[in-house]
Amino acid sequence: MYDLLGDLSIIEASSFVASPTAGLYCAQFGAEVIRVDHKAGGLDYDRYMLTREGRSLSWENLNRGKKSVALDLRSDEGRELLVEMTRKTGNVITNLPEKSFLSHAAMSRGRADLVSLRVMGWHDGRQAMDFTVNAASGYPLMCGPEEWEAADPPPVNQVLPAWDFITGAYSAFALLSGIRHRDRTGEGSELRVPLGDVAIGTMANSGAMAEMLYRGGDRERLGNAIWGAFGRDFRSRDGVRFMVAALTAKQWQGLVGAFDLGNEIVALEDELGVCFADGDTPRFAHRHRLFALFETKAGALPWADLEARLSAAGATYERYRTMHEAAQDPLLVEGNPLFGPSPANPSGFAYPATRSFANIPGREPADPRPAPFLGEHTEAVLAERLGLPSGAIGDLVDRGIARLSDRK
Amino acid sequence: MYDLLGDLSIIEASSFVASPTAGLYCAQFGAEVIRVDHKAGGLDYDRYMLTREGRSLSWENLNRGKKSVALDLRSDEGRELLVEMTRKTGNVITNLPEKSFLSHAAMSRGRADLVSLRVMGWHDGRQAMDFTVNAASGYPLMCGPEEWEAADPPPVNQVLPAWDFITGAYSAFALLSGIRHRDRTGEGSELRVPLGDVAIGTMANSGAMAEMLYRGGDRERLGNAIWGAFGRDFRSRDGVRFMVAALTAKQWQGLVGAFDLGNEIVALEDELGVCFADGDTPRFAHRHRLFALFETKAGALPWADLEARLSAAGATYERYRTMHEAAQDPLLVEGNPLFGPSPANPSGFAYPATRSFANIPGREPADPRPAPFLGEHTEAVLAERLGLPSGAIGDLVDRGIARLSDRK
Repeated sequence: MYDLLGDLSIIEASSFVASPTAGLYCAQFGAEVIRVDHKAGGLDYDRYMLTREGRSLSWENLNRGKKSVALDLRSDEGRELLVEMTRKTGNVITNLPEKSFLSHAAMSRGRADLVSLRVMGWHDGRQAMDFTVNAASGYPLMCGPEEWEAADPPPVNQVLPAWDFITGAYSAFALLSGIRHRDRTGEGSELRVPLGDVAIGTMANSGAMAEMLYRGGDRERLGNAIWGAFGRDFRSRDGVRFMVAALTAKQWQGLVGAFDLGNEIVALEDELGVCFADGDTPRFAHRHRLFALFETKAGALPWADLEARLSAAGATYERYRTMHEAAQDPLLVEGNPLFGPSPANPSGFAYPATRSFANIPGREPADPRPAPFLGEHTEAVLAERLGLPSGAIGDLVDRGIARLSDRK
Repeated sequence: MYDLLGDLSIIEASSFVASPTAGLYCAQFGAEVIRVDHKAGGLDYDRYMLTREGRSLSWENLNRGKKSVALDLRSDEGRELLVEMTRKTGNVITNLPEKSFLSHAAMSRGRADLVSLRVMGWHDGRQAMDFTVNAASGYPLMCGPEEWEAADPPPVNQVLPAWDFITGAYSAFALLSGIRHRDRTGEGSELRVPLGDVAIGTMANSGAMAEMLYRGGDRERLGNAIWGAFGRDFRSRDGVRFMVAALTAKQWQGLVGAFDLGNEIVALEDELGVCFADGDTPRFAHRHRLFALFETKAGALPWADLEARLSAAGATYERYRTMHEAAQDPLLVEGNPLFGPSPANPSGFAYPATRSFANIPGREPADPRPAPFLGEHTEAVLAERLGLPSGAIGDLVDRGIARLSDRK
């Protein structure tokens, strides 16, 4: 929570995960992010997980630190208020369809230099969401145990909606780029970010697309091994599962030392005529022989012992945790300055709340702010942004065009 | 490839995936991104996949459109040249350790308003990479078939290095935020983005951390089903696997129509006393009963038939493809303006190359540019950025402090 974007005001008319995270990151850097929802709550207002009182824990985390305006977005009058807000503000994040009342054309009529960022499904307008673009990307058919059949494996969807989160962060970047361009030239921009293009584009940017075309086929199954480098999951004698990785000669030597495999490695190098310290290639090419050595050694030692060695060697490793474990882990959460005291959440439930991912040494980050109640800022924003007097606002509320806070 | 950031110049001293994508996105928007590597190539110069000639296909896609300077970064003299470049440029992306020659303190000595963005492992300096922070996050123990034991399931690593890509996009955003702040106040910033914080922070921002703490335990296994909504993978009669999702009443009705399940759904609603069109909750709560209906219907129809129906209904669905299939898919790649003609890649291999994820209607995007050869811009950059005359540059090359293009 650093004040890097304190001069920016952004209207966010969006739902779900991708576009709200774009707004969230801006809010965490001090921008005023005004989320405008339909008065009964947007499509994501009731998304799991819900508390017993029906408050969405995902909504209140994705929208922490924003303002909330609630309008009847099914009425022309409510829609026009939103469009007017975008014109007065000049910066918009949305995932409403381009062919909707909130098109760039409609908003920029009356605000020629408007910068809008629109998250879409596929580039041609077809519907998409994280799990469907993931299916198209090729990744799910690569996930899962190495021993599954290569010809027709069942797909494994990643539980993390990665495409949503990459799209959200990229959208925040693209929005700021459009704003920077306007600062310099006066020209607004309509920036469209299709979730499907983030997925296929990432697959290409990673080099994987070129790889498959170069191979003329698909990659072999790897299970939990790291592609093109040394790393995999192992299990200690007392059943603790952990991941190790060695991406440099130094990390490799640290791992070999921690596992006390010096002699075995030398013997294997002699047998194969390679030097594993040379780079990723020999370590990856001969990974199965190496995994066998590491597996045996891991299975002979208790985790406490292994961890002490890995830590002392400065190795790159991590124990697998369940999410509930991770949520209570002192190293990951309590003792981590990423998290701050839980503000007064609309749900009434107290839990660690995040600051921005980025930290600035020497600058004190503000505490996390609460998520808004739906409609908490309707009155204040209509007054300040649209200049409506309180009588006019009262009338809008009476007629159900605007709604005030849903705090009970 | 839009010229939104054409006035920006950025020095990138980084490797692997996260920080190079931050530079890539800036380069795609027209910024001059000067990647500075050790003269023999950085830690990622030989990363898989390699062509027969030893060119890395991942490197040339992650560094498309950047300039490349090669220096002896193991020598004090080479390091000092890099530090001097950062001071002259004022904007830096790096993943070198904070306790290195490229600390913010060293760079900003002589450039007080420097903005640096440093990708780190864990916030406390411990080593990390994508697969290890993923292990800590809780996601791998949630992935995989529903029928695996809940108590001690094997972890499933996602093949996509999602944390790298989220971190890269977020870092581009954070860098621009720091630059905007400097534009307004004259103050530089040292922005640190730990990969581990992106992972744990995302888990929290998604609401999942609060969910597990609220439950007092972990979530049930879901397999490929979408958490809290309706969606899962199915298989057609002729063996085609596909994903469907319904996140709104409209999408739900479209799906029911496409699968011709109207009567069955009404009967189930009567039996259970619910109305599935009401929202996510009844559809998720009774998903197993619904999945059984959809599974039976899917298994009775050939894909061509199902797809025609899903498409006509405007449903949210996608066929699972292998990555090799996806790479050759006309809808995803050839016919997609995200991709452009393959520029002259260092590998000599021709394949579709990406433009920016964001597109701007009405503005013609430039074609993708080639990745640089290592050291291709050493001479030009040393001359322009540091004002070195050609004699001095020649001397640096002769003494192995600087290296020119590795084009053969």
